[in-house]
Amino acid sequence: MHDVKKVNVMEGILDENDHIAFHVNEKLSKDKILCVNVMGAPGAGKTTTLKNLIRRLDGLGACVIEGDIESDIDTQELKSLGIKAYQINTFGACHLDAPMVQSMVDSIDLGSGGILFIENIGNLVCPAEFSIGEHVKMLVASVTEGSDKPYKYPLAFEKADMIVLNKTDLLPYVDFDEEFFMKGVRALNKDAMVFKTSGRSEEGFVEAAAWLSWKASQVGNGSHHHD
Amino acid sequence: MHDVKKVNVMEGILDENDHIAFHVNEKLSKDKILCVNVMGAPGAGKTTTLKNLIRRLDGLGACVIEGDIESDIDTQELKSLGIKAYQINTFGACHLDAPMVQSMVDSIDLGSGGILFIENIGNLVCPAEFSIGEHVKMLVASVTEGSDKPYKYPLAFEKADMIVLNKTDLLPYVDFDEEFFMKGVRALNKDAMVFKTSGRSEEGFVEAAAWLSWKASQVGNGSHHHD
Repeated sequence: MHDVKKVNVMEGILDENDHIAFHVNEKLSKDKILCVNVMGAPGAGKTTTLKNLIRRLDGLGACVIEGDIESDIDTQELKSLGIKAYQINTFGACHLDAPMVQSMVDSIDLGSGGILFIENIGNLVCPAEFSIGEHVKMLVASVTEGSDKPYKYPLAFEKADMIVLNKTDLLPYVDFDEEFFMKGVRALNKDAMVFKTSGRSEEGFVEAAAWLSWKASQVGNGSHHHD
Repeated sequence: MHDVKKVNVMEGILDENDHIAFHVNEKLSKDKILCVNVMGAPGAGKTTTLKNLIRRLDGLGACVIEGDIESDIDTQELKSLGIKAYQINTFGACHLDAPMVQSMVDSIDLGSGGILFIENIGNLVCPAEFSIGEHVKMLVASVTEGSDKPYKYPLAFEKADMIVLNKTDLLPYVDFDEEFFMKGVRALNKDAMVFKTSGRSEEGFVEAAAWLSWKASQVGNGSHHHD
């Protein structure tokens, strides 16, 4: 949140946001579409992770809504690979919110089944505060960011259902203390799945894709609204 | 900004913020202290950059105000090196603002002369919107974040007086297109100084420290309020 003086304004916005997020989730669940909110710092490797996951989700349809302040670099790249991708530009706003996602979801034909990935703005703070209708919050963290990130940015780690620890190919060249990192993660979050991945070595994506496929198979079979 | 619906609230807050930022800047200028607002994504290497710069600012006194959502990991590390460091915790807020900085500056004895570094929250979006009384905005960007960052997060690059392109020791292991990065930077910002640095090889810090020393020598000799 930007300022303590705005707490009341923010509370109203969060209530309204959650209400709309609930409806987005309800619609996607009805269509048996798993919605994944992809969060992480700038440059953590969110788009690369999506490219690598989607390749391994064959059989399951997948598409991507890309959130960016400006530019459509990632959307163009995904499209060039034959992935269905749609762009939301926030022009200044530091996170996606449920109304933005609802407008997009209502204006495109997602069909039924499969996975909708929504790549949030690169920001380890604000996106964690806003539900956008997701079933799964995926946090992409890179080993180059350092092992102290769960201690410094706790909310994102606390809320994640799935943590992708990315760029493991760079481990020999950086100071990253995996034990300290995981201790920080587990102090905040006992349950999140953690996958170690690398866009270079392609480590870890088969396992992460398998877990997402399993989550996708559950959507619409009862109540799976993210709380 | 979090939401278009809050534009009026935000404008009021920004006006008040800028007013307080002006007074912080005025006080520091009178005391001939150069104030540097240190911004960058989580894990860009802001604290490591400060450690490396301060070692090379001998003669000039330097101290640090550390901004973090939670934790005082960096403050403790700086203190262990004999650097004067003070902690601001925002407990959720995604950037520092001028009132937070004013409270801290008013409560500590900064003496006169030298450089006050204020390390902002790791966030490539929101801190760029708020002046905190600085003379210089320093943006730390890491080569591991990728060369498209000026295109995706333009405001931070547009507002920077000094860009530290960090972790250059990792260039052999990542895809970083320096020409594309600099093209993006220069489209937004013709004047910012750009220093290529590495905490591992210690490249670039002598030059960056020299430029800051020169800036510090100018403070209080006329009007240098950052606009």
